[in-house]
Amino acid sequence: MSKRPGVCLVVSGPGLIHALGGMANANVNCWPLLLIGGSSERNQETMGAFQEFPQVEACRLYTKFSARPSSIEAIPFVIEKVRYLRAVRTSIYGRPGACYVDIPADFVNLQVNVNSIKYMECCMSPPVSMAETSAVRMAASVIRNAKQPLLIIGKGAAYAHAEENIKKLVEQYKLPFLPTPMGKGVVPDNHPNCVGAARSRALQFADVIVLFGARLNWILHFGLPPRYQPDVKFIQVDICAEELGNNVKPAVTLLGDISAVSKQLLEELDKTAWEYPPESKWWKTLREKMKSNEAASKELASKKSLPMNYYTVFYHVQEQLPRDCFVVSEGANTMDIGRTVLQNYLPRHRLDAGTFRTMGVGLGFAIAAAMVAKDRSPGQRVICVEGDSAFGFSGMEVETICRYNLPIILLVVNNNGIYQGFDMNTWKETSKFRDPTAVVPPMCLLPNSHYEQIMTAFGGKGYFVETPEELQKSLRQSLADTTKPSLINIMIEPQATRKAQDFHWLTRSNM
Amino acid sequence: MSKRPGVCLVVSGPGLIHALGGMANANVNCWPLLLIGGSSERNQETMGAFQEFPQVEACRLYTKFSARPSSIEAIPFVIEKVRYLRAVRTSIYGRPGACYVDIPADFVNLQVNVNSIKYMECCMSPPVSMAETSAVRMAASVIRNAKQPLLIIGKGAAYAHAEENIKKLVEQYKLPFLPTPMGKGVVPDNHPNCVGAARSRALQFADVIVLFGARLNWILHFGLPPRYQPDVKFIQVDICAEELGNNVKPAVTLLGDISAVSKQLLEELDKTAWEYPPESKWWKTLREKMKSNEAASKELASKKSLPMNYYTVFYHVQEQLPRDCFVVSEGANTMDIGRTVLQNYLPRHRLDAGTFRTMGVGLGFAIAAAMVAKDRSPGQRVICVEGDSAFGFSGMEVETICRYNLPIILLVVNNNGIYQGFDMNTWKETSKFRDPTAVVPPMCLLPNSHYEQIMTAFGGKGYFVETPEELQKSLRQSLADTTKPSLINIMIEPQATRKAQDFHWLTRSNM
Amino acid sequence: MSKRPGVCLVVSGPGLIHALGGMANANVNCWPLLLIGGSSERNQETMGAFQEFPQVEACRLYTKFSARPSSIEAIPFVIEKVRYLRAVRTSIYGRPGACYVDIPADFVNLQVNVNSIKYMECCMSPPVSMAETSAVRMAASVIRNAKQPLLIIGKGAAYAHAEENIKKLVEQYKLPFLPTPMGKGVVPDNHPNCVGAARSRALQFADVIVLFGARLNWILHFGLPPRYQPDVKFIQVDICAEELGNNVKPAVTLLGDISAVSKQLLEELDKTAWEYPPESKWWKTLREKMKSNEAASKELASKKSLPMNYYTVFYHVQEQLPRDCFVVSEGANTMDIGRTVLQNYLPRHRLDAGTFRTMGVGLGFAIAAAMVAKDRSPGQRVICVEGDSAFGFSGMEVETICRYNLPIILLVVNNNGIYQGFDMNTWKETSKFRDPTAVVPPMCLLPNSHYEQIMTAFGGKGYFVETPEELQKSLRQSLADTTKPSLINIMIEPQATRKAQDFHWLTRSNM
Amino acid sequence: MSKRPGVCLVVSGPGLIHALGGMANANVNCWPLLLIGGSSERNQETMGAFQEFPQVEACRLYTKFSARPSSIEAIPFVIEKVRYLRAVRTSIYGRPGACYVDIPADFVNLQVNVNSIKYMECCMSPPVSMAETSAVRMAASVIRNAKQPLLIIGKGAAYAHAEENIKKLVEQYKLPFLPTPMGKGVVPDNHPNCVGAARSRALQFADVIVLFGARLNWILHFGLPPRYQPDVKFIQVDICAEELGNNVKPAVTLLGDISAVSKQLLEELDKTAWEYPPESKWWKTLREKMKSNEAASKELASKKSLPMNYYTVFYHVQEQLPRDCFVVSEGANTMDIGRTVLQNYLPRHRLDAGTFRTMGVGLGFAIAAAMVAKDRSPGQRVICVEGDSAFGFSGMEVETICRYNLPIILLVVNNNGIYQGFDMNTWKETSKFRDPTAVVPPMCLLPNSHYEQIMTAFGGKGYFVETPEELQKSLRQSLADTTKPSLINIMIEPQATRKAQDFHWLTRSNM
Repeated sequence: MSKRPGVCLVVSGPGLIHALGGMANANVNCWPLLLIGGSSERNQETMGAFQEFPQVEACRLYTKFSARPSSIEAIPFVIEKVRYLRAVRTSIYGRPGACYVDIPADFVNLQVNVNSIKYMECCMSPPVSMAETSAVRMAASVIRNAKQPLLIIGKGAAYAHAEENIKKLVEQYKLPFLPTPMGKGVVPDNHPNCVGAARSRALQFADVIVLFGARLNWILHFGLPPRYQPDVKFIQVDICAEELGNNVKPAVTLLGDISAVSKQLLEELDKTAWEYPPESKWWKTLREKMKSNEAASKELASKKSLPMNYYTVFYHVQEQLPRDCFVVSEGANTMDIGRTVLQNYLPRHRLDAGTFRTMGVGLGFAIAAAMVAKDRSPGQRVICVEGDSAFGFSGMEVETICRYNLPIILLVVNNNGIYQGFDMNTWKETSKFRDPTAVVPPMCLLPNSHYEQIMTAFGGKGYFVETPEELQKSLRQSLADTTKPSLINIMIEPQATRKAQDFHWLTRSNM
Repeated sequence: MSKRPGVCLVVSGPGLIHALGGMANANVNCWPLLLIGGSSERNQETMGAFQEFPQVEACRLYTKFSARPSSIEAIPFVIEKVRYLRAVRTSIYGRPGACYVDIPADFVNLQVNVNSIKYMECCMSPPVSMAETSAVRMAASVIRNAKQPLLIIGKGAAYAHAEENIKKLVEQYKLPFLPTPMGKGVVPDNHPNCVGAARSRALQFADVIVLFGARLNWILHFGLPPRYQPDVKFIQVDICAEELGNNVKPAVTLLGDISAVSKQLLEELDKTAWEYPPESKWWKTLREKMKSNEAASKELASKKSLPMNYYTVFYHVQEQLPRDCFVVSEGANTMDIGRTVLQNYLPRHRLDAGTFRTMGVGLGFAIAAAMVAKDRSPGQRVICVEGDSAFGFSGMEVETICRYNLPIILLVVNNNGIYQGFDMNTWKETSKFRDPTAVVPPMCLLPNSHYEQIMTAFGGKGYFVETPEELQKSLRQSLADTTKPSLINIMIEPQATRKAQDFHWLTRSNM
Repeated sequence: MSKRPGVCLVVSGPGLIHALGGMANANVNCWPLLLIGGSSERNQETMGAFQEFPQVEACRLYTKFSARPSSIEAIPFVIEKVRYLRAVRTSIYGRPGACYVDIPADFVNLQVNVNSIKYMECCMSPPVSMAETSAVRMAASVIRNAKQPLLIIGKGAAYAHAEENIKKLVEQYKLPFLPTPMGKGVVPDNHPNCVGAARSRALQFADVIVLFGARLNWILHFGLPPRYQPDVKFIQVDICAEELGNNVKPAVTLLGDISAVSKQLLEELDKTAWEYPPESKWWKTLREKMKSNEAASKELASKKSLPMNYYTVFYHVQEQLPRDCFVVSEGANTMDIGRTVLQNYLPRHRLDAGTFRTMGVGLGFAIAAAMVAKDRSPGQRVICVEGDSAFGFSGMEVETICRYNLPIILLVVNNNGIYQGFDMNTWKETSKFRDPTAVVPPMCLLPNSHYEQIMTAFGGKGYFVETPEELQKSLRQSLADTTKPSLINIMIEPQATRKAQDFHWLTRSNM
Repeated sequence: MSKRPGVCLVVSGPGLIHALGGMANANVNCWPLLLIGGSSERNQETMGAFQEFPQVEACRLYTKFSARPSSIEAIPFVIEKVRYLRAVRTSIYGRPGACYVDIPADFVNLQVNVNSIKYMECCMSPPVSMAETSAVRMAASVIRNAKQPLLIIGKGAAYAHAEENIKKLVEQYKLPFLPTPMGKGVVPDNHPNCVGAARSRALQFADVIVLFGARLNWILHFGLPPRYQPDVKFIQVDICAEELGNNVKPAVTLLGDISAVSKQLLEELDKTAWEYPPESKWWKTLREKMKSNEAASKELASKKSLPMNYYTVFYHVQEQLPRDCFVVSEGANTMDIGRTVLQNYLPRHRLDAGTFRTMGVGLGFAIAAAMVAKDRSPGQRVICVEGDSAFGFSGMEVETICRYNLPIILLVVNNNGIYQGFDMNTWKETSKFRDPTAVVPPMCLLPNSHYEQIMTAFGGKGYFVETPEELQKSLRQSLADTTKPSLINIMIEPQATRKAQDFHWLTRSNM
């Protein structure tokens, strides 16, 4: 059975309602999350108690399950009755999501007879279901008849631990695949069948697309033309019945655990001697497009002009990236371009802002990943790639990183703004003759902010880098020091953008 | 593939928010329901428009899905884009439930270019999933090793059209079964293996219980002692992952379409020569208990004293009940006792107040069933068995029945009250010396109300019956007349109750 | 101080969520309402308890205040702490509205030490506030300078018991006034200054309008052209600050208790010798329009053709209407036309579907009014004027009326449909050659339904009337019998409508 | 008329739901707030659009008013129709609160005919109401008969601009007063009648308490014994009717604008020659208690030991505090103790975490205050007093402060933790032998964090101070430099607490 652990986030006080942003994010992203919150004392309700608010109700829209135990005896973990395990269970059974358990303030001081406590084992691993046999047969037949097939690997495949089966599908049948942002690493990004570098082309001309735990939402352009062929045949593999048929009419739907269903597909396809011809025109097209796209990226990356552009930065980072590291990322261009260059080799090792794209999650993710690594595989590193604007949302968590002395490497890719900023000269020029507040466009941030000093303020290592050489060196030092966190503040061209896209409609929402 | 059609209920105006009662009922009961509502004109919102109210938001708590199309072009059924089919699809995919689509008042007069319309086929039948093979093996093993096994057949089995497979399981392996209220008829109630007449005994002493689409909620006493053995092993077969493990720690969970999983179980059990010994002590105990319970019921039924008691009434009804009729029912004792006597021979032919138990649903159900019967199998009858109090909730729907001339037979089992009432003499006596309003206990209704005149007021046939003979005769006439609705107002002993139960804890919540 | 009692409605079970329709209605209508509901047992929450539902949360959108007491000791009325009186207080302080108090099922059997109980007096009468003196001066000046003034008297004036002060304003300064539906009777409808019969004209040409507790919502056409002059000056008198300035920019706002503010206005206007000239052109225009409108109504009323039209019916009802009776009404044309003919002479004696217009409230209102009358002024009658469709929503409450033997007179104005129906011949004709269900238009009800038999079924008096003479006679008999309820089923022309309106935009929303 | 401007906060994207924390805070605190948010494109709703979420619904619990304009023409500010001004109006009329206006993403690119735009003036100042004359008389009589009177001045008095009238009441009648946290400055803190230094005593023994816009919530201990006399007479002056009678049964309620009502009280009390005897025993008791409390504080403040304690720090800050500065504050002990020492001389010049106490608001407040000061009275300074934990919530806003070059002075009172932390030696000691993460108690932060470097990272001035002399000097320099922001990181004794309280029940919730 697959294992999908519930992530536990403890919020100390009832006023911390901004946790809701995180819960919405977790729920839209289908992250298993258990939030333990605290409302005010029950016998002061409606009287104007300290931070009185209907917490359970406030969490309803953001969660799969939200409840307050009726008594201290009904609290999870320690208690005879298994009900509140419902929160843990619900967060990981079916499509994962966020749950909320409310602990009123007066519970904190209540006492319970120690004999009435019976420690419970946790709920069982999520139950596994498989697709209907006839649907599997139909899917195999559609795949075999595809002229221009494409597999899309979503984060649902990662959650389901489907990596082994999907990798076999890719390799045995010579199929091209694309990962979604958090589906990266299920099959390694450097796999020859990965057509990430020809993403738009692959989506636009595929005639059969198999979705493994990937939703046809804005990230996949809703599955609609002009980004797709009007008659493209979708095969949806998903754990959630209600997801099947969203926005398109699929050719085949395979409802079940994504790993189990992938195995069913493998077994079915195995029954004949078929493979997708590796010398097909489709493969040729894709490989050519990948080649030209990669060449364009490399050209950008190799530019010697300063300040650096995004590609230069990420190519140098990629060169030194440990194969087993966690990559955490958030930002706009930083997250989007970074994803195309930074490679994942392991499943569930990329954590980014996901579908809901709320900024501010990066440092929390990095801390959580570092705590897991510390326990499970000492030496495994966490690289957190932040846009400067994104870093501003929760940069103070650097204190937490230093308090627990977690050797996280924070990269702030700094263009002095959101999307784009000004360089220092332009900034000074524009503010020379006028009230400075009047001339700050809303997207600009203070030029040349020394974010690395946020790290040194708390005892970590800080680097301010402006050239490829400085970047390489600071990275080398950071990776070498396993005892301390570091932050590398990387100055780039404030007007830098991503490379030109094929069509204008490719620039709005990017995978 | 199984077919579970969405039931469509159209509400004409935005003020009809009491529809929410019905939606909560539908959602808790997992009934597929699509409600089309209408909010006020969009450009008058926040101005105090006619029946202005946030309808979509008001429906959120009661539905699986609630939305307003962003434009007239986005309305379901007739339009190019398939999105609003999402409401239909969501109501029937996964665990069924209620959905709401909001149509603002101004949409009614908006026009759309006829060429932009593309008629859509409906969504595909719900996708089918199956249980993990190893879990099926484990379940089969637990069943084979059971000393005192029991199958519980819930309405989920009925929705999944699992009747054929479950009947085979019952018969091939000689297993005792119990239906839940709306699971009745999946296997006929008169099947020799049905232990409904020994329900409490069966629940209390079973060591292995297989739940087919039945939830361990209040109707099944949460699966907890003292109604069950503390170490009973539950095997849960359900379409909803989050349901698995509710309130108990199950021995095996089988996630998937209940019909498909039943078939997997059949195939697995078929691999050995096993059957549950029909002469086991467990079967003996159950049969004895059934015999004594049935005898007690029959004794009550054969009582000659007047007014009649519940059992007398239902035995006479049962004698004339067509085997293929729909039985609709609501009320307290009327629904509970009636269910034990009135037999269902076909799946999905009993409609009652279900898990949520909101009264007032009976006549709507009867009308819907009669419309379906009219189309699909003319001659098939609908018998609607109502308590007098329950009938009061929507008795005016008799006008609708007569308007559409639907030959529904309404039985009002009339005890002058809710649970219990007064007879006319007691009523007069208590009100003789005092202000009459002072002496009406809140559970009493007006004695000897002539509900049959509600039917004659609209042109149907009405009967007021006080004896078994009158009951028999009026039933015969009603069944013979296929052109008209009729209402039989059956006077019973106002203080009549159900027969004594084994233990006091059996009287609170009854299956 | 003014007195605005909270109306208490007890709902016995948690399933009765359709009470929400009533709560929305009460809240939109600013009716003080206290609902005591009951959720399931607290320690079964999240387990699938009997009628488990988040009741407090479900009531949030519909109420001013919704809460569950944290313990039995915290329940209102009987208990030491005054907190839950907050529900009573909130329903009547400020702008009145609906409140909900949740009583979980387990509270019903909990016990509390009798010594811990301290009976509480109820909260004080609502606090009274007055308008700012300078605003009152400004308002008086605007009124004195008005060329074509108009007072609009809303239900807020009735709630505030402002009748004495507003009547003085009307009479002392010779001002024309219009009541809103539930503002009728604050000044008697037959007052010579009431310009109800020239409503459209009055609204359309007034240059200064004083609103006493009347909102500029759909009933008053949002206060916008073309129904009003673009430069009309509104003076808003209201208890609710947030209401002031809705939809229009008022000339003056007077925030406070409407009775107290009216008195301030009186005192301010008294300071000069001014009165509005009774022979002004404006009065002349209004009087002419009233005369011609009344003549048109009278002509319709005097038509001898059968079936009767609305006007004939209401003129005969008005002739016999006791001056002190409660008039309850609901329906579409029945409520709208009835309101123009049936006169109110006392404030707070008209109860109709109000702003939110949810049908089904009539019989509940009639019962409540009859209970109040029984206590307070025996002999005072309740006349309940129902459209046939409206009666269908809660016609079964006739049983309640008969159970408590309340001498309510129910008039069902029966046109065989909603807005319009078919006569019996057309009905038979259209259904002769085809499936009858196919030909029932959605707005038609069963022709010639004998609603009066709903009354006789429960022992009251029923009349089926088709001519003015039958109507007169049945009314006389019903009024003479003070011991019994009666229902007069009045057949009218199925295609009857209201009389022609001046402009097409007058037909959509009618005061 | 009083002026209460709506504060506008613009949130650029739909993902910023953590703004909800701020809205709850604003709404509980009755701050007028207008939030402009942005949901996803309307025609992608239900499709999985970018940051799709029901924003209007999500804001419902947190706001007085939440809506989406139905079209671009309906957007506020610029448009012919005045409806969406409703959001501005609602935020400032009646009791102020938060409002939300949703702007879907597609509105951003929609175009509207420039001729259809009519620029609107803003809504009028909030309407003013006054208390009933008889209630004012009664209140005056209760005050005149008080033996131990007390005025409590809440933030409602500040919002109502009631400073002039309340100051007259205090001075003319020689009455003692207490401000609530944000009521400070309505009458200057150094006024001889301010009994803030004897707060507990004053509350506990007063026999008549007049509340000016102060709620009897947790901050005022619900108005209940043992913190108050059981028979204390409350006179409530409030703008919100529903607030009157919360938790206690008041002797008199005065509903209306607090400034207007204060003036009514003045005029009523003026009618007799009364004043409260300045040599009464009550005044003597209060003065003695103030003297002893102030002596105790001064003793703490004058302690020479290092690290400093809270009192030493605040006394030195108070010495240099400009009389007209804004004081912004948040934290636990820092906010609570700081409030008792730092004096306010002007109304509406203290901004702290208020009733809801959500941390993270300080820097936003400071920025807003500095922007207002810049415009309105250049040279007026903003002093922001932060606990180190509180600073952690939004310390990154220092970048905003530096970007706009606002000369804010940030004081971080740093005790290495929440409530209490460890000094560096203890920290090192405890972590010497073990895994450092294991020994960090949840309330501790990293010792000796150099928060001042957060300021220097962005170009402002930073100070790390450990002695009174360093504190004095850095403050002098910061105040002298009007061109730059500065941050003074003040190290105090990590185990420092507030001074001992009279009774144990005084330590939980402090004004």
